[in-house]
Amino acid sequence: MTDPLPFDVAPWSIGLSGLDESELAHRESVFALSNGHVGWRGTLDEGDPHGITGSYLNGVFERHPMPYAEAGYGYPSSGESVINVPNGKVIRLFVDDEPFDVRRGEVHRHEQRLDFRDGTLHREVEWTSPAGRRIRVTSTRLVSLSHRPVAAVRYVVEAVDGPATMTLQSELVANEALPEVHPDDRVKEVLDEPLAACGAFVLGTSATLVHETYESGQRIAVAMDHTVSAPGRAIVETEVSDHLARTTISARLEAGERLEVVKHVGHEWSATLDPQALRDRADAAVDEARRAGWAGLTAGQRERLDAFWTCADVEIEGSPRLQQAVRFALFHVFQSAARLEVRSVPGKGLTGAGYEGHTFWDFEGFVLPVLTSTAPEAARQALMWRHATLDHARERARQLKLAGAAFAWRTIDGRESSGYWPASTVAFHVNADIAAAVLHYVRATGDDAFLRDVGVELLAETARLWMALGRWDDDGRFHLDGVTGPDEYTAVVDDNVFTNLMAGQNLEFAAAAARRHADRARDLGVTGDEIDAWERAAGAVAIPFDERRGVHAQSAGFTDHARWAFERTTADQYPLQAHFPYFDLYRKQVVKQADLTLAMFFAPDAFTPEQKAANFGYYEQLTVRDSSLSAAVQAVVAAEVGHLDLAADYLAEAATLDLDDLHDNTDEGMHMASLAGIWTALTCGFGGMRDSDAGVRFAPRLPPQLTRIAFGIKLAGHTLRLEVRPDATTYRLSDGPPVTVHHFGEPVELEAGHPLTLPTPPLPDAGPRPTQPKHRAPRPFAEALRA
Amino acid sequence: MTDPLPFDVAPWSIGLSGLDESELAHRESVFALSNGHVGWRGTLDEGDPHGITGSYLNGVFERHPMPYAEAGYGYPSSGESVINVPNGKVIRLFVDDEPFDVRRGEVHRHEQRLDFRDGTLHREVEWTSPAGRRIRVTSTRLVSLSHRPVAAVRYVVEAVDGPATMTLQSELVANEALPEVHPDDRVKEVLDEPLAACGAFVLGTSATLVHETYESGQRIAVAMDHTVSAPGRAIVETEVSDHLARTTISARLEAGERLEVVKHVGHEWSATLDPQALRDRADAAVDEARRAGWAGLTAGQRERLDAFWTCADVEIEGSPRLQQAVRFALFHVFQSAARLEVRSVPGKGLTGAGYEGHTFWDFEGFVLPVLTSTAPEAARQALMWRHATLDHARERARQLKLAGAAFAWRTIDGRESSGYWPASTVAFHVNADIAAAVLHYVRATGDDAFLRDVGVELLAETARLWMALGRWDDDGRFHLDGVTGPDEYTAVVDDNVFTNLMAGQNLEFAAAAARRHADRARDLGVTGDEIDAWERAAGAVAIPFDERRGVHAQSAGFTDHARWAFERTTADQYPLQAHFPYFDLYRKQVVKQADLTLAMFFAPDAFTPEQKAANFGYYEQLTVRDSSLSAAVQAVVAAEVGHLDLAADYLAEAATLDLDDLHDNTDEGMHMASLAGIWTALTCGFGGMRDSDAGVRFAPRLPPQLTRIAFGIKLAGHTLRLEVRPDATTYRLSDGPPVTVHHFGEPVELEAGHPLTLPTPPLPDAGPRPTQPKHRAPRPFAEALRA
Repeated sequence: MTDPLPFDVAPWSIGLSGLDESELAHRESVFALSNGHVGWRGTLDEGDPHGITGSYLNGVFERHPMPYAEAGYGYPSSGESVINVPNGKVIRLFVDDEPFDVRRGEVHRHEQRLDFRDGTLHREVEWTSPAGRRIRVTSTRLVSLSHRPVAAVRYVVEAVDGPATMTLQSELVANEALPEVHPDDRVKEVLDEPLAACGAFVLGTSATLVHETYESGQRIAVAMDHTVSAPGRAIVETEVSDHLARTTISARLEAGERLEVVKHVGHEWSATLDPQALRDRADAAVDEARRAGWAGLTAGQRERLDAFWTCADVEIEGSPRLQQAVRFALFHVFQSAARLEVRSVPGKGLTGAGYEGHTFWDFEGFVLPVLTSTAPEAARQALMWRHATLDHARERARQLKLAGAAFAWRTIDGRESSGYWPASTVAFHVNADIAAAVLHYVRATGDDAFLRDVGVELLAETARLWMALGRWDDDGRFHLDGVTGPDEYTAVVDDNVFTNLMAGQNLEFAAAAARRHADRARDLGVTGDEIDAWERAAGAVAIPFDERRGVHAQSAGFTDHARWAFERTTADQYPLQAHFPYFDLYRKQVVKQADLTLAMFFAPDAFTPEQKAANFGYYEQLTVRDSSLSAAVQAVVAAEVGHLDLAADYLAEAATLDLDDLHDNTDEGMHMASLAGIWTALTCGFGGMRDSDAGVRFAPRLPPQLTRIAFGIKLAGHTLRLEVRPDATTYRLSDGPPVTVHHFGEPVELEAGHPLTLPTPPLPDAGPRPTQPKHRAPRPFAEALRA
Repeated sequence: MTDPLPFDVAPWSIGLSGLDESELAHRESVFALSNGHVGWRGTLDEGDPHGITGSYLNGVFERHPMPYAEAGYGYPSSGESVINVPNGKVIRLFVDDEPFDVRRGEVHRHEQRLDFRDGTLHREVEWTSPAGRRIRVTSTRLVSLSHRPVAAVRYVVEAVDGPATMTLQSELVANEALPEVHPDDRVKEVLDEPLAACGAFVLGTSATLVHETYESGQRIAVAMDHTVSAPGRAIVETEVSDHLARTTISARLEAGERLEVVKHVGHEWSATLDPQALRDRADAAVDEARRAGWAGLTAGQRERLDAFWTCADVEIEGSPRLQQAVRFALFHVFQSAARLEVRSVPGKGLTGAGYEGHTFWDFEGFVLPVLTSTAPEAARQALMWRHATLDHARERARQLKLAGAAFAWRTIDGRESSGYWPASTVAFHVNADIAAAVLHYVRATGDDAFLRDVGVELLAETARLWMALGRWDDDGRFHLDGVTGPDEYTAVVDDNVFTNLMAGQNLEFAAAAARRHADRARDLGVTGDEIDAWERAAGAVAIPFDERRGVHAQSAGFTDHARWAFERTTADQYPLQAHFPYFDLYRKQVVKQADLTLAMFFAPDAFTPEQKAANFGYYEQLTVRDSSLSAAVQAVVAAEVGHLDLAADYLAEAATLDLDDLHDNTDEGMHMASLAGIWTALTCGFGGMRDSDAGVRFAPRLPPQLTRIAFGIKLAGHTLRLEVRPDATTYRLSDGPPVTVHHFGEPVELEAGHPLTLPTPPLPDAGPRPTQPKHRAPRPFAEALRA
């Protein structure tokens, strides 16, 4: 780990003073803005210097060939990669013909600040040009939460110490270079300048660029217009060419005078609309933004965020950095999904091109539960997206000679984009993770219409997949052979406990849903025999248990294998996959990321407390956390089995993973699932929250480092907030009918307006703190979250 | 299968009358000539039409990038592909300016014939040109067994029915197109015109082209000169350019007169020699060939082949086609290796570019035993080649974080060229197969110097690999986890029986060799403790046995898995790998090629007769023979367990695999291991031959279809021939000291000049004939080998 960036600590924002070219890409990810439709990385207004420029529209990608040294049946022949759409962030400034460039002249002050309640990225710079003219630039950028296609920048430049002519070049720039997402030349070639011009238009001072991709069949329109306020006359001119639109704004300022420009940018894309229709929509978005005005846009941000925070805010006492980190994380998760409209959240959100912009299982597994509890409409939109990809998933299942639907392991539009089947195609658990997300959503919202219209089909088609995959053995158990669970250092195994339990849950829930909505199920061709078979299999999934060692085997035979030689592995040999061949990782006991431990979190009732404690201790010794998906899960289970201090350390790791760039790849974008995991570690870890058909269960306990946590969740549209203190927890239901929850196993009825405070039972002795592989213990909480 | 080519049936040759453009590539493979250094496909002299042109030098390849959709640690970044060297076969003919082209004019007769004793490819054509001139062309081609760099063509054209001017263009053609060996564009680009010109020379009438490859750092020189006999004056002119050398020979013939040209071609390559030195060598080869003359070259062929056939010939009574097929096979195997000189035999020999010209484990596993028994010097040369690649193998082991040497799964120069690790890197058994080849060679030859100088190092380094790969468990057994055995439909498994037994044999033999040559072992750093550890592990390898089913599990847990749905699999879904994903093949009981059955052949003493019978019956039901390596092995074990009729059917399949193009890919070259398997099925199957430290064991028994088999093997330089009849076998030792062999388990001492005839014991009842998966039973012998 290099030195972490010196972000300041504040309760509702995160700021950074100074500027160092080597850290730009990291900063740009942290300061990225999005609304789930548009994503703008936190680049400087003037575009240069930059780390990784990035302007994304959710769902826009280019299709590229997938190269194989040795191809095989069912290998996808093409893959998908997120591409840059025309960049509307750019506002270049010339001061008396000197370009404003932080690498030249003198920077007196440089500060960027992301505000979690305003939903803006604010920047202040004081700079003296090489010719000696001092200016002050203040820019505020937003990606609108209230107007889906809109992003905007308010840019103010002030002549500080004398007169100057200020010339702004505000641009839309197409075909900006992408970071290398794939080393293959053919892929690079396809992704180099992926946009072909369809038209470039000027209307008054507005400009619009329309492009299309060569292979993926998508069209993109980006439009801009400006509102200019100058003390005297300002000249405004707009020109366009195929890949550049430029509005030049020029004004003479006296000392102390300011030029203010508000840039409105509209973004639309479509796989079906013709260029003219698409252009009209982008232009309409700009018009709408201009009508709303800067005040309207910023009010819209505040309004949407206030509504979000009212329920979702997590208050922390005992660690200001953790307080900031959890709000920062919730802000990123929320903005990644605020205006999804039947699209998914990529692994990196819209904050970078990492993972080629793909969505993985951890969206449903880690991000969706947070949205379900705090912004359920966004969760519904994302599940609608999965449902919209059902035809691709059915086609994939057919190709694999299975039944039902096999959802893509990594994708943008729903088609499989994985090139290494042992860690993708056979990681069938993604299907059960989607089913579980449906279950959580329906439990939290009571949205029975969704269950009928969307859920039953998702559940039935995934249930059919499991039935085609599984086999009954003479032992009377239902087995799933040759699959890969969450742990990517163990692949193509039989009876992965996580997969089997999740498949069982999927089958059980599918049967219940099909019985509840029998008409809908019948329309989908689900027979009574089929439902019976689902139930039988659900009740009989094989769960390997190693009697000799007294722990569950992560998969059949896992605990018999040689243990990884952790003592001989040096700190710089992590992540292991970069230094050892897969085959050696696969055949030994070494765990990349929580797998059996995740099973204990996602299927809590399948294990006794004693099994949980024994399993956790056993797998802690094997888990190296080479994946960002692990720490939060380990925090949750550590807390459940009573290792609150260890849980706090894991929480701290999740909380600092992107801010401190622990995996050295935050440059490529924020880790959405890990950000979501911070919330999860707090609510499901220290809050002990688990959902169930009989109501949400809580078992709140604070770690020694914290004196108070408060958090809220949405239940059937109403807000339940918990305030956890060391000795007791207070439950507050905002409104609506009474609900039953469980406090340490005891059912409790909560009424709106009647807070209930319940004591925390004493913590049973959890035994000695579990140990981790050499070099892989988490940093202590106090060290990671030092103020 | 399309209609097989109508090859004629003859005891010592194979011929084909007529010509059909659609079958050219198949014919070219069957009629390919080689000496292990040079390989010439059986294309027509005039070059066109052709199926797949091909002129190879053993060891010449180009290096190309290996593309991966998702790369991983230890994946080879580049691969190797055989390329065409300048083609010296081409002799174009013009008859009064009309090109001789079998697609034009009228072909009255066209015959090609490969002669197994002459070592020549003979061709006769009678043709009338579109202008009405009738000619007779007789060409004989050879790749010299006595002069390593030399190939030659005697080309005779006769004016049949009137005077004509005959003009021959005899050429060397560089950069001829290769068939597509890899679908990736980057690979194709590298392999398109892979030769750069280094020089083109004329000296008198001779011509020499020198080229070099762009990436692999090899230089190639090919030279030619001609001996011309014409009734009158012949004009001979030679010209060269970068990629073409042409000698034009023109003569006027009256009706009945002939023009005879002998073309001598010399081939050399080197990774170190400069162009001039290489040119000199190629020129010297041509001079040498001219001095030997056509008579000398053909005498050399006959002499070498007579020597070979004296020991190696297999006589068959009862099936003329089988008689031809076995000699054809032995001829191909012998010529592929006759002049190896520290190189290997690729999977397709030098008969085509299939498998990119790579050598695999089946060379040591299938081809080397035949050479060891019939041409032991060739076997020695091939083992020297493996030894010469030890540094690459050590480097690979280091890269894989193992010890000793990890030999390449597929390679030309010893570097790993595999792109799919589950079916290559972890198929570690290749190392034990190499060790076994050393064992067989030493047993058959008694070549103790080889064992000391070459064998000990090969054995010790492979033994070290096994020790690094294995683990001791509490059960006191030595386990090998996460490997792939011969069956490529089952991958990355624990304790593959074949691998474990072969590894045990490797360790045991390494220990014995190290004790025998203690000085040499010490020089290699082998310690006494190390040898002890090898012996302990050798005696303790885990051998999974399924008590419930009473059979060995091919690998741990194999017999617990679901059985492939053979009943639902249609005939056109074979080979399965082209229609089903790997993961589904891997997790089910379905066997591509003999694996446990191969273990029973290669480690015969590890199984009781009852186990062999039970195992064979069990695995017959699962084995689909999607690999050409399977039928011969199944023949051997079927014969051993008493199913002689089934063994005969499998032998027939091996015997017709290339002649009838059963796998629809003989176009790309002959399957060397399958050809070798014909011999193996006869000698080890019906001869019951197995080697051992206590002498060779035989258990000869004829199938009902045959009345007599005779075959010979080399033992310590002397020839032992067996003549097997239904009721008895006669053993004849040519010369040398007495040897002990075993006849049906009884030791017998054989003396030179004293044939011994021993009776065949009655065949115990083998029970009902084992069954195969639907659609996958072998054709009956009588149908496959109908005359």
